[in-house]
Amino acid sequence: MNPIDIIPNHQIGIQITAAGGPEVLVPVEMPVPECGPLDVLIQVVSAGVNRHDVNQRRRGPDNIHSPVPGLEVSGVVARIGVDVHNIDVGDHVCALVNGGGYAQYAIADVGQVLPVPSGLSLQDAAALPEALFTTVHNFFGVAKLLPGESVLIHGGTSGVGSMAIQLLTEFGHPVYATCGTDEKCAMAEELGATKAFNYRKMPFEKALQAATDGKGVNVILDMAGATYGHQNVEALARRGRMVHLSPGGKADISLPLRELMRKEAVVTGSLLRPLPDAEKAEIARWLYAKVWPLIGKAIKPMITQRLRLDQACVAHEMLERGDIAGKIVLAIQRPPEQ
Amino acid sequence: MNPIDIIPNHQIGIQITAAGGPEVLVPVEMPVPECGPLDVLIQVVSAGVNRHDVNQRRRGPDNIHSPVPGLEVSGVVARIGVDVHNIDVGDHVCALVNGGGYAQYAIADVGQVLPVPSGLSLQDAAALPEALFTTVHNFFGVAKLLPGESVLIHGGTSGVGSMAIQLLTEFGHPVYATCGTDEKCAMAEELGATKAFNYRKMPFEKALQAATDGKGVNVILDMAGATYGHQNVEALARRGRMVHLSPGGKADISLPLRELMRKEAVVTGSLLRPLPDAEKAEIARWLYAKVWPLIGKAIKPMITQRLRLDQACVAHEMLERGDIAGKIVLAIQRPPEQ
Repeated sequence: MNPIDIIPNHQIGIQITAAGGPEVLVPVEMPVPECGPLDVLIQVVSAGVNRHDVNQRRRGPDNIHSPVPGLEVSGVVARIGVDVHNIDVGDHVCALVNGGGYAQYAIADVGQVLPVPSGLSLQDAAALPEALFTTVHNFFGVAKLLPGESVLIHGGTSGVGSMAIQLLTEFGHPVYATCGTDEKCAMAEELGATKAFNYRKMPFEKALQAATDGKGVNVILDMAGATYGHQNVEALARRGRMVHLSPGGKADISLPLRELMRKEAVVTGSLLRPLPDAEKAEIARWLYAKVWPLIGKAIKPMITQRLRLDQACVAHEMLERGDIAGKIVLAIQRPPEQ
Repeated sequence: MNPIDIIPNHQIGIQITAAGGPEVLVPVEMPVPECGPLDVLIQVVSAGVNRHDVNQRRRGPDNIHSPVPGLEVSGVVARIGVDVHNIDVGDHVCALVNGGGYAQYAIADVGQVLPVPSGLSLQDAAALPEALFTTVHNFFGVAKLLPGESVLIHGGTSGVGSMAIQLLTEFGHPVYATCGTDEKCAMAEELGATKAFNYRKMPFEKALQAATDGKGVNVILDMAGATYGHQNVEALARRGRMVHLSPGGKADISLPLRELMRKEAVVTGSLLRPLPDAEKAEIARWLYAKVWPLIGKAIKPMITQRLRLDQACVAHEMLERGDIAGKIVLAIQRPPEQ
């Protein structure tokens, strides 16, 4: 790794060259991004790979923010904007980034940069931001989860799911999960879930009603798009909320209106990326205060694959096959001697 | 009207004799209902007619609560349960009732009985409970309407719509409405709506976006069932809520999931009738404190038809034709000399 005071003008990043399969992800030489007044330039050690990146790749280069995918990184601060005061060059950080993570250098808004928690390595910290910002925003911001309320997490061993199970269990919420294999169900329970249901083997909504004495759950986190509209409403408790993280492949979701009304159930969702910077910064402060002390102890990212930057296409193939549990990270630059 | 100390054993009430058209509503001699410990027996002067009654009639006699339709009455207290202390025989009241309103005597839970407001006649007070409990529960309970937030009310001149426009305007909310004719639009604006849109002449969601400088509205009250899923999401502001009052004829509602997520919009609804008595009593207290002083002044029920008890079938015909604005009440017994 270069000393941080020598920053090249050019770098290697992965570009989405067209809408298509993993093969459209190509390493390209490109300029190191500019650092605006409230930006932090990070020399990337690791980048997290997310489902969002796969969807972005399928839609093709949109160039609104960056033709380079990647929403989270860890690394060393290489440069700071003129209005950045609480972060220094050389700091070890992780950050939510607005695209551009699959590269040697990435730009983050200062409000979305957090120190690497003491319980975790610089390499592994890239697995935190997307899953934790998503979990906190959706459960506490959107769904307004109250103390003691129960939750159901679809995709219990996904990047978001595996972190959400640990975080919510630690906060005292009864957590249920669905997974696609018995092995993944066992992993979800290992992470803290009270009970995980194999949705390929049983109607999860019936199993859940049985497991909760017919009460249902207060909040459902759904990343399966429009698939489970009816089943989710059935699984919800009175005044329960279902929160969608992913629009999925189908444009419309179909819901049983009378049953939704009878329960005063709420259907909602969010997209993390377009959230205003000020709101992301609020989530970051919340994470730093309430979650950072638990990282490496009660909450550990479940990193199951480490690949090289030029293997981004392999990472996408793995995510799309759906047989991987936990998180994939790209190891981009060697961390400095510690 | 009989003196209230002489209560007959039998009375005339309207029974739903089968699932069907208005002709299944038949006047029948039936027992005067029993008065439980927390009940109030009301000698009915007027009963309000609601869309709910029409839907109940179409489904046929279910006999869960009462084979007699009718969710709201005004009248004179004829008998009180042994545990009722704040209401006396002879009091002039109006009440939400759990069915049984289309009759000479009706039973109400004590928590859902309110005095006739000073600004209104005993005959007209029957037009208040259903519309006001519905408005308050949905806007303040379910949608959590905040000060200054804007609303869109579908069916601006319906019984609920006409009361909701007046109440929310009086509380300082910008109110928009949709109606099916230009005449009804003019009436909705007369009641206080900032702007009413004729949904037969224009896509209301476009007109609304134009009227709000592209911001949309914070809360939509919808009684059109699954009809407007997409248009409502378009009409909503960021973090707006759409609240359904009526399941309508179609079982499922279809919603644009990605757009809902982008706005963090909420889709929800409620059924007033199955709400626990304790929650209805809370709404009654809220109404008494905040709304009762305004009745007859800023808020007047829009009663456009008064019919006899044996004309209940005519009332249903009118509601189903949809050409009536405001409220229909059945005049059941003559009020006492005042």
